[in-house]
Amino acid sequence: MSSSSALLAQLIDALRCLPGIGPRSASRIAYHLLGRDRDGARRLSDALRDAAERVGHCERCRNFSETPLRPVCSDARRSGDTLCVVENPAQLAAIDQATHFRGVYHVLMGRLSPLDGIGPEELGLDRLEERLREGQVRELIIAVSATVEGEVTAHYLNEMARALNIRVTRLAQGVPMGGELEALDSGTLTQAFELRRDY
Amino acid sequence: MSSSSALLAQLIDALRCLPGIGPRSASRIAYHLLGRDRDGARRLSDALRDAAERVGHCERCRNFSETPLRPVCSDARRSGDTLCVVENPAQLAAIDQATHFRGVYHVLMGRLSPLDGIGPEELGLDRLEERLREGQVRELIIAVSATVEGEVTAHYLNEMARALNIRVTRLAQGVPMGGELEALDSGTLTQAFELRRDY
Ligand SMILES: [Zn+2]
Ligand SMILES: [Zn+2]
Repeated sequence: MSSSSALLAQLIDALRCLPGIGPRSASRIAYHLLGRDRDGARRLSDALRDAAERVGHCERCRNFSETPLRPVCSDARRSGDTLCVVENPAQLAAIDQATHFRGVYHVLMGRLSPLDGIGPEELGLDRLEERLREGQVRELIIAVSATVEGEVTAHYLNEMARALNIRVTRLAQGVPMGGELEALDSGTLTQAFELRRDY
Repeated sequence: MSSSSALLAQLIDALRCLPGIGPRSASRIAYHLLGRDRDGARRLSDALRDAAERVGHCERCRNFSETPLRPVCSDARRSGDTLCVVENPAQLAAIDQATHFRGVYHVLMGRLSPLDGIGPEELGLDRLEERLREGQVRELIIAVSATVEGEVTAHYLNEMARALNIRVTRLAQGVPMGGELEALDSGTLTQAFELRRDY
């Protein structure tokens, strides 16, 4: 498409900022939008601009927010005794919808990954430490993914909270609901076996 | 992410206009852009708006164009004797880069697909017919994909051109360069066998 249109070439190039979109997909998407869905393209343009300009981070929990403080972070009915740390807003939404948790959250917006240059500073963990130092939190629930980076993150958070004499808990690990033993990966199975409990 | 930000929800929804992007991917993309690449989001917003507003179609060949007539369509060095019909701009670019073709193109921007409601009118085939009626074209090269819809399209174009006494050719079909026979699908192999030529 070198010669057809500079604006088209620019659009194809700009689409590459989307994760997982290579040059072929970017061309395909651009042709689709210009050929069949210009309204969608305009709507997406507006939504990108509005979100990029006006969505910031909550001062308290670091989650995306259009206001300095998310409503839930100033909700007096939420107990500040229990703080649940998640990696990202999707995990927060999943826990909030699935459980009856009525405490407060902290969103890391990532996880520790020294190899990728993501350390405590990049995750703003000093802000979390400040929050813990306020003295209200009695239990820190670590709700991170069961991955290597998740483990590194959990280890760091555990050290931080223990130094402040705060109880630390983690989500249980084991056989997922409905999971057939023979279909589990061996890592999960080994862990579930070692963490077995009295009946 | 129900509660976090209306603008974020709006962005996730708008991203669904991209082909192949479901709700999970849309969320992932939105988090990535807002968390790590706001510049990319702004650039994409601008590119989408500019392209949606200013990229139209060439009056002559139907390809995307920012001007009423693409430069290549008013290039006197290009021979109007031979007209190559392709399905989309990507095919045009591929042929233009790979071959020494110096004739002119016509871009269908799709292919006939009666089941999807895409008929001759949707592809603007009346404009192509007008172009053929001008009398300059001596050979119509049909360069469409070797798919069922491509065959339907080729058949229609062949009828149209023959009625105007214009020679019609198609791209050769057979074993692709470097293609190992044992790795070919049986359709290609059968066709290559039936279309065998004298050595
Ligand atoms: Zn907050
Ligand atoms: Zn043209």
